[in-house]
Amino acid sequence: MIRGFPVEEYRGRLARAQAGMANAGLGALLLTTEPEIRYFTGFLTRFWESPSRPWFLILPAAGDPVAVIPSIGAALMGTTWINDIRTWAAPDPEDDGISLLSEALRETGGPVGVPSGPESHLRMPLAEFERLKQASGLTFMDDRGIVARCRAVKSEAEIAKIAESCAIAGRAFARVGEIAAQGVPLSRVFRDFQRLLLEEGADWVPYLAGGAGPDGYGDVISPATETPLAKGDILMLDTGAVWDGYFCDFDRNFAIGRATPLQRAAHARLIEATQAGLAAARPGARACQVWRAMADIVGGTDGAGRLGHGLGMQLTEVLSLTVKDLTELRPGMVITLEPCIDTAPGRIMVHEENIVITEDAPSALSPLAGPELPVI
Amino acid sequence: MIRGFPVEEYRGRLARAQAGMANAGLGALLLTTEPEIRYFTGFLTRFWESPSRPWFLILPAAGDPVAVIPSIGAALMGTTWINDIRTWAAPDPEDDGISLLSEALRETGGPVGVPSGPESHLRMPLAEFERLKQASGLTFMDDRGIVARCRAVKSEAEIAKIAESCAIAGRAFARVGEIAAQGVPLSRVFRDFQRLLLEEGADWVPYLAGGAGPDGYGDVISPATETPLAKGDILMLDTGAVWDGYFCDFDRNFAIGRATPLQRAAHARLIEATQAGLAAARPGARACQVWRAMADIVGGTDGAGRLGHGLGMQLTEVLSLTVKDLTELRPGMVITLEPCIDTAPGRIMVHEENIVITEDAPSALSPLAGPELPVI
Repeated sequence: MIRGFPVEEYRGRLARAQAGMANAGLGALLLTTEPEIRYFTGFLTRFWESPSRPWFLILPAAGDPVAVIPSIGAALMGTTWINDIRTWAAPDPEDDGISLLSEALRETGGPVGVPSGPESHLRMPLAEFERLKQASGLTFMDDRGIVARCRAVKSEAEIAKIAESCAIAGRAFARVGEIAAQGVPLSRVFRDFQRLLLEEGADWVPYLAGGAGPDGYGDVISPATETPLAKGDILMLDTGAVWDGYFCDFDRNFAIGRATPLQRAAHARLIEATQAGLAAARPGARACQVWRAMADIVGGTDGAGRLGHGLGMQLTEVLSLTVKDLTELRPGMVITLEPCIDTAPGRIMVHEENIVITEDAPSALSPLAGPELPVI
Repeated sequence: MIRGFPVEEYRGRLARAQAGMANAGLGALLLTTEPEIRYFTGFLTRFWESPSRPWFLILPAAGDPVAVIPSIGAALMGTTWINDIRTWAAPDPEDDGISLLSEALRETGGPVGVPSGPESHLRMPLAEFERLKQASGLTFMDDRGIVARCRAVKSEAEIAKIAESCAIAGRAFARVGEIAAQGVPLSRVFRDFQRLLLEEGADWVPYLAGGAGPDGYGDVISPATETPLAKGDILMLDTGAVWDGYFCDFDRNFAIGRATPLQRAAHARLIEATQAGLAAARPGARACQVWRAMADIVGGTDGAGRLGHGLGMQLTEVLSLTVKDLTELRPGMVITLEPCIDTAPGRIMVHEENIVITEDAPSALSPLAGPELPVI
C-alpha cells in the first residue's frame, strides 16, 4: 500500500470545493480542523493533540490553497503539494496569526465560508474569531455544507486506505483468543488488543471501546474496568484503528468459555440485521431506510439510537443511520452497519461492519462475521 | 494507584469556578469540550473521537452542575457524581439538544460564560450556537478565563496521575534498545514503542512523534517514515501516553550504533539547558524567565519556538515557555522543559522533561536524563 495521494487527488478535491463556492457565491473557505485541513492538503500529524496553536487553510474561489500556520508546521506542510505557506511563531499572545490570516483573506476577498453545520466546529478561540472578523472587515457565513459534501463520497484511493485499516483490525480480531480468557481483567484485554492492532500494522489506535458481562454490556463508550472476565461473559471490542490517516470502525463479540442459547440467539439476530442492512444499502436509498431495515429485525423503536454512520478520516462522519436522517446513499460512501439489541434490562449487544456503497450491492471492507458467536 | 477522584475533589473544583463566576457576575458557565467537561464531572471516555454528537455541561452560579448530553452517555455519566443528567436521542437533525440546553440555561439564567481564550474552542457547530443564543434569549460572553485558571494548578491527586504516566513512559524508554537498531524502519520503531507503552501500563497512546537522522531531525511533529535507522543516526521519540486521563509528555534521544562528538555535545547542552530551566522554575517566576534561562544556553533567539508548556489532562495546556508568555508559575503547576538546539541547517535536537512547581525547588515527574547520550 502506498501512503499519501497523488497531487491530482487534491486538485480534484479543490475543484469540487471551488465549484460549490462558485454556486454559493463565496470568496473563500476558511478551514481550521484536522480532517478539513488534511483533506485538502495531505498534512498528516498527530500534533493536533496539542490545543495550543490554531492552524488555518484558505481555499480561494480560484487558485491554490493558502496555508497560514504556526512555524513549527512549516517543514511538514512543505512536503505536501501546498506552495503558499505563511507562518508565524505561535503561540503568540499578542497576535496569534490573526493579522497574517486577515491579510491572506483580504487577498481572496469574501464572503468567507466557515463549516458550521452538523459535526463541524471551529478550532480557534471564539475571542480570536471575533478579532479576525474585525481585522479582516470581511463577511463570514456558513460554508453551505460544501466541505461536508466533498468529503462524503470517497475516492478509490481513500477506500483502499479504509480497507487496509479494516484488514489490520480483522487480523487483530482473529487473535483475540491470545489475549482474552476467563480471569483476565478487561483493562488488560484493552491494552493487549491495542498492542495486537499495532503488531498487525496500525499506525495508531485512536479509539477502543468495549464491554463485558454475562448478558451483554451496559453501553459501548465506557473505559475498561479492572473486572476479570468470567466464564459465560460476552466480551465486545470495538476499535477505530488508523492506517495512513483513515479509520476502520467495527467490533466483534466473543463468548468466554461457553455461550448461552440467549447469547447465541442475540448474536445471530445481529448478523441477520447486518445482512438486512447490506441488502438495503443501495445507491438512492436513504440513511433512515437502512436504519429501518435493521431496526425491524433487532426490535428498535423510533427512539432507538443510531445503527451505523459514515466512516473515513474520522471515526464517524457524514451521516447517521437513524430514523430521522434523510441523507441519500451514493456510490463511494463508506458506512458502518451497527445493529444493537437489548439482551436484558440495561444490557445490550452490538455488532458492527464497514461497507462501501457501489452502483450495485455494497462491498464489505471488514471481514463479515458469520451468525455463530465465537467462543474463546 | 486509585482511578478517579473523590467527590470532594470535584466539589472543590466547582467551588473555585463558582467563586470566579460570582466575581465576574456570570449566571452560568457552558462547557462543551472533553477536558472541560471531564474536569468538573470525571466523565472519561474515548468516545469524544466521534464528532457526531455535541455534549454540554452547565455550571450554575450556585448549586450542582447540569449535564445535557446524548442518551448514549447516560449510563457512563450516571457513574459520576453528577445527579442532574438530561439526555436526548442524538444526533437529531431537527433539534440536536438545543431546546433541552436552552431550557436548562434559562433555569440558571445568564449571562452565560463560554471559554473563549487561548487554547479554547467551542465544540458544537457554529450554526447550533447561533440557534442556542436565539432559543435561550440569554447573553453569552467570554468566561473571563475562569475554567483555564481552575485547571492551571493541579491537585496532589492530579499530580500523582501525571507521575504515574511519566513512570510508565520512563519504563518504556528504558526498553527502546529492544526495538530500535540499525536497519529497523522508523515506522516500526513507532509502532513498537506504542506497544511498549501499553505493556508498561499506559491506557492508551494519544501522541507519539519523533525523528531520526545523522545530524538530528527536521521537526518534531512529522509521522514516521519507512526509512531504516542507520548507524550514526540520532533517534528521538516523544510521547504523550495517558493513564486515567492524564498525560505525560517527554522525549529521549538515542544514538544508533555510535555517537559523534557533535551529537554528544548537543545532548549535553540540552541537559544543561534543562538544569537551568529547573533552577529557574520557582514560584513567582514567569514563563518567559524559564524560557530565557534555557534559551541562553541553547542559543535561542527571541523568535525561537517555545521551550516547554503546561501539561495535565491535555498534552499541552495552560502556558507556553516563550519569550512573550508572562504567566506566573505557582505551586501545583505541571510543566515540561523542552529545550531545542540547532545541530545543522534545518536540523535540530530536542530534549524534554516533566516537572511540578513546588514552594521550593521543582520536583521531577519524569526520570531526569543525564548528560551522556545513550548509544543503542
